[in-house]
Amino acid sequence: MKTHRLDALLNPQSIAVIGASNNGARIGGMPLAHLTKFGYQGAIYPINPKYESVFGLPCWPTIEDLPQAPDLVVLAIGATDVLPMLRRCVAKGVKAAIVYAAGFAEEGPQGAALQQELEEYVDGTDLVVAGPNAMGFANLNTQAHSNFASVFNAVPMQEGKGTVSLLTQSGNVCAAVYAIARKLGVDFSHFINTGNEACVDFSQYLEYMAQDDATQVVMGYIEELRDGPRFIAAAQEFSLRDKLLMLYKAGETDKGSEAVRSHTSALAGDKAVYQTAFQQLNIIQCNDFVQMAHLANLAKYRHLHAGKRIAIITISGALGAILADKFIGQGLDVPTLPESLQATLRAGIPDYGMVTNPVDVTGNVVNDPGFVRTAMEALAQSDAIDTIIIYAPGYMLDRMANDLCQVSGQLKKLFVAIDTGAAQSREQLRAGGVPVFEDIGIAVNALSPFLLWQERRKANRWLQLRQQALPQRVALPSQLDELSTKQLFNQLGIGMGVERCATSAELASQIAEDIGYPVVLKVLSPDIAHKTEAGGVRLNLQNAQQVRQAFEEIQRCAKAYAPQALINGVLVSRMEKGLVELIIGATRDPVFGMTLIVGLGGVLTEIYKDVSHRLLPVDADMAHDMLKELKAYPLLQGYRGKAHADIKAACQAIEAFSQAVLALQDQVHEGEINPLLIKEQGQGVCMLDALVIRSSDER
Amino acid sequence: MKTHRLDALLNPQSIAVIGASNNGARIGGMPLAHLTKFGYQGAIYPINPKYESVFGLPCWPTIEDLPQAPDLVVLAIGATDVLPMLRRCVAKGVKAAIVYAAGFAEEGPQGAALQQELEEYVDGTDLVVAGPNAMGFANLNTQAHSNFASVFNAVPMQEGKGTVSLLTQSGNVCAAVYAIARKLGVDFSHFINTGNEACVDFSQYLEYMAQDDATQVVMGYIEELRDGPRFIAAAQEFSLRDKLLMLYKAGETDKGSEAVRSHTSALAGDKAVYQTAFQQLNIIQCNDFVQMAHLANLAKYRHLHAGKRIAIITISGALGAILADKFIGQGLDVPTLPESLQATLRAGIPDYGMVTNPVDVTGNVVNDPGFVRTAMEALAQSDAIDTIIIYAPGYMLDRMANDLCQVSGQLKKLFVAIDTGAAQSREQLRAGGVPVFEDIGIAVNALSPFLLWQERRKANRWLQLRQQALPQRVALPSQLDELSTKQLFNQLGIGMGVERCATSAELASQIAEDIGYPVVLKVLSPDIAHKTEAGGVRLNLQNAQQVRQAFEEIQRCAKAYAPQALINGVLVSRMEKGLVELIIGATRDPVFGMTLIVGLGGVLTEIYKDVSHRLLPVDADMAHDMLKELKAYPLLQGYRGKAHADIKAACQAIEAFSQAVLALQDQVHEGEINPLLIKEQGQGVCMLDALVIRSSDER
Repeated sequence: MKTHRLDALLNPQSIAVIGASNNGARIGGMPLAHLTKFGYQGAIYPINPKYESVFGLPCWPTIEDLPQAPDLVVLAIGATDVLPMLRRCVAKGVKAAIVYAAGFAEEGPQGAALQQELEEYVDGTDLVVAGPNAMGFANLNTQAHSNFASVFNAVPMQEGKGTVSLLTQSGNVCAAVYAIARKLGVDFSHFINTGNEACVDFSQYLEYMAQDDATQVVMGYIEELRDGPRFIAAAQEFSLRDKLLMLYKAGETDKGSEAVRSHTSALAGDKAVYQTAFQQLNIIQCNDFVQMAHLANLAKYRHLHAGKRIAIITISGALGAILADKFIGQGLDVPTLPESLQATLRAGIPDYGMVTNPVDVTGNVVNDPGFVRTAMEALAQSDAIDTIIIYAPGYMLDRMANDLCQVSGQLKKLFVAIDTGAAQSREQLRAGGVPVFEDIGIAVNALSPFLLWQERRKANRWLQLRQQALPQRVALPSQLDELSTKQLFNQLGIGMGVERCATSAELASQIAEDIGYPVVLKVLSPDIAHKTEAGGVRLNLQNAQQVRQAFEEIQRCAKAYAPQALINGVLVSRMEKGLVELIIGATRDPVFGMTLIVGLGGVLTEIYKDVSHRLLPVDADMAHDMLKELKAYPLLQGYRGKAHADIKAACQAIEAFSQAVLALQDQVHEGEINPLLIKEQGQGVCMLDALVIRSSDER
Repeated sequence: MKTHRLDALLNPQSIAVIGASNNGARIGGMPLAHLTKFGYQGAIYPINPKYESVFGLPCWPTIEDLPQAPDLVVLAIGATDVLPMLRRCVAKGVKAAIVYAAGFAEEGPQGAALQQELEEYVDGTDLVVAGPNAMGFANLNTQAHSNFASVFNAVPMQEGKGTVSLLTQSGNVCAAVYAIARKLGVDFSHFINTGNEACVDFSQYLEYMAQDDATQVVMGYIEELRDGPRFIAAAQEFSLRDKLLMLYKAGETDKGSEAVRSHTSALAGDKAVYQTAFQQLNIIQCNDFVQMAHLANLAKYRHLHAGKRIAIITISGALGAILADKFIGQGLDVPTLPESLQATLRAGIPDYGMVTNPVDVTGNVVNDPGFVRTAMEALAQSDAIDTIIIYAPGYMLDRMANDLCQVSGQLKKLFVAIDTGAAQSREQLRAGGVPVFEDIGIAVNALSPFLLWQERRKANRWLQLRQQALPQRVALPSQLDELSTKQLFNQLGIGMGVERCATSAELASQIAEDIGYPVVLKVLSPDIAHKTEAGGVRLNLQNAQQVRQAFEEIQRCAKAYAPQALINGVLVSRMEKGLVELIIGATRDPVFGMTLIVGLGGVLTEIYKDVSHRLLPVDADMAHDMLKELKAYPLLQGYRGKAHADIKAACQAIEAFSQAVLALQDQVHEGEINPLLIKEQGQGVCMLDALVIRSSDER
């Protein structure tokens, strides 16, 4: 790894503590206690004019007295003293500082002003400043402690080096997850909590972790992201370097989001957008700290072939069914085994066992170790299965342990054991490449996302798409009414109906005669967004007289509704017939930028929240995935004897919309086709209405 | 407890083992090994002509040789030998027998015939027969073992008596759950797996457990129930006796149900109906064995006041928010604390802490034990809070432990501690009445259903309703067309529109003139269920001419569609206007009997499965709960500026429908009002169509 800006912060060669204390329970004492206790090899400089020595180290009166400029300075001093001290650090040539003090942006307008001042000052320097309102860091491979986390006293310190980094937006969460994961045997590289992120935000730490050779896995906790594009780039780097990134996002329920909001100044952000971003970036979204620790342990086995098609081997039909049920519920597949594989298994399994999947080998099989080995090999060699999960009582597992390790090692496929009993061979298995779970629920919660992660990294379509060049910029017309918006999208590849603008009743009826009845009339104005509300829509007009009358009424209503509006005329459109109406929209998410939403039109979609989200770009294949995510998807597939909808055309339209939005770049704040009519198979799609809100018009 | 029929099976005073073996690893040896090893005090009779003695006990050649008739005989012999041996047991005067052998109903038609024969024989005797295909039982309070479960060798035996019983439909699940729960310190009374349930089914064991003084908690596992009414009665008994019943039901996903089905001969049954039955009976439905073990431990604290309104106390805003999020996600409430309580808390909590709920006491508070005590007392005395959950790092919990135990004990309100660190005071707290969890996920999964169980048992409306007398029987008319069905329901209290039967086009137009346009015409025939398909419906008729024409068309279409159908005429109805259409249906569930389903009309309800289920009877309050369960409920509440629907009338109609179905008793197989039109507030409801399928007509 090349030298990184955050090196001085996360891998310091020398550390000074301003506000040093001899009391290991105080925030000025704890980092020194840790540094000395855990054997940090770099230079340590306690600074406090009150003491001669602290924790057996010479104590320096001021920063200016130090014999060298330390890489990292810990500021264990009050909020109002911070900025003056940072100036002195800069003068001394310090590279990085951590600010413990609370009393900044999290505490009202006065604190926010203080933080603003700090940010502005640091911006003009080369100093890297972490926090404020942070618990500090630890590099567990060098034992560089710059934290006041008492958890390092409460939990036994790891003996070797670790490859798992903790990166959280809360100090207490950082400490709690550390304690939980240490109990489960996780060894760490970095312990990081970001505090208020005044100068260094979550994404920058993440970027460092992506590049840091000591880090293979990151367990993260976030409340809000400040820099979406940088976060995306860092997550892509994780993918490229084959590292595993998992995140716990606070605020699963609406009330939970509120609770998060009330304790930070942060907006929790759109849960659904975060979720889709994580999925597109192949970040494992966690909902439990124990699950995270197990995932960190599982990451050690990520070189073995694994994926979502699992075989379940048990000695009990009931337990096999229970496991199948749970794994299927988490998105894995339990496919019926191929005939040839079934035949191999049947050779050693009694008639009352099962060979389809789950496989019930019955209790007898354990007496036939030769068969167990043959069965393992057959499963490992099968192309139809990615992962083999064995649930056996302890003593049976013990008898299989050697074979399991050997077969897995030779054929490089992931075997996983679940033992709720008391197998003696657990450590042998783990060391031999076979993870062992002692609890069904945890096995399901950790294995499922791990296997889906393995599955997705085989081919991450979106990360590939993002490598491609953006479409050429298209200028937004100066005036945008319904017709010009549709024409814009139409030029970029989305179907529209036969429709023209009429500026007189006579012309409207001529157009109608021309395009054929029934027709629809709609007021055409860049200033009237809610046409129905304005009385500006007339449906199902059957003849010239009705059209003329409708034209006059629309003009009258529109003028009454919005006297100042520019009215370009009335749009005369042929009534289109189709099967299903979709909403396709793009909105600018404050964190992740332009995001796409697709759903069925109508009030029930809103009530059932049956929509699919994606970050852009989206191609037709991804569009199809979006449609398939909709619970209402069957309506497109010929539901209850109705015709099939033109799904292909719908997907192409969604891709075209994605490209259009990208081509419009920063000119557009929001875009929507609502509804897009999907016709019968082979008959394409048709925009019934379309809207673009300029960035400058943002409501 | 009075003597129960299953006493000889579950609490035997003497046990014989037919097919006794000296080998403790064989099924004929294992029960004897357990009985001798664990110190059963009753008489033990090994039976096998091959041996003189077995496990140090005299071995008897035949059952006839025994000096007394044993309470319980274990049959460790092959399937085809079972029935002859049972005859000999009966002749000897044996009270109960357990059949280990597989090869009965679970194994094809031949096995099914063998089981049938067994059932028929036993039916004519007083013998109680458990299994076949069972792993056998254990009474852990008397150490009466009649099982071949090796788990009793693998897991340390409990030292004292237990009050938790295991009751499962799978031997391997029974053993697995036993092992898991023992590790978590659960002490058991009974270990029961029901096997094929040829003669004694799950509900009968459950009934025993309800009456058994030694059992306070049942951890159950079911694949299918055979006797719904008996199950309901037993579950009611649990409620009456203040015992906790929790069940794991196999088959959460559709594919999981399939896997269950393929390993038993059982139908998994309607998941939704099981779920509603459990809820109405206040049975905790579990989805994890570890969760079950923790619930068994929690049951010890059920005498303390507890419920769904929780206060969360932490030293971290982030952890408080995470916990709130998780508990809210599981259906609990985290209400904002009353002002006075906030004021009490504020007195000891620094400004940067939080007093609303979650309460962030901050790390400082631990230095002020007097305040901690005051705060605990204030929370325990508040009527606004049912349960207090404290999440603190180990050392803080240790300092609070004494106060927690004292306050909880004095004020009889449940306090719960969560410590993911390493508190020393865990056992002190548990013994002092304060449960401690070491994992957040498990705390949420076990506590949430426990608190909801406490909440529901305060007032179980349905169990009360079931005490009331059933409505008087109403005879079903001999002929049921739409009109007579509606009239039947109308007499029982459900609103209908103005509509009459016309037998000629002229009469139809007269009726229409009379009731006012627009009208609807529908064919009226007890033999045509699908009127639209038959071309038998005409909507929105505006004048006499249209009505006459529609009458003739309907007659023609109906005769062409079903030439043999009895056509009573054509129903002329005024077109009704309303806000929302509901489906209200009752169907006979094979296990639980008549069940009610309520949902919105239309194809999207089907797609989104947005329906609510209940076992009958249902009153208007419960009907309101059902409506509120619908995701589409907002449509009834004046969605987006529309009018409010007459929810009260809808609820009354649902109650009336429930009563009607009960009054019709066994005459009806299925009944439906589809749709029931809900009008604006104050304007009532109106059946637009109604259907009853007689039991004899069952399709």
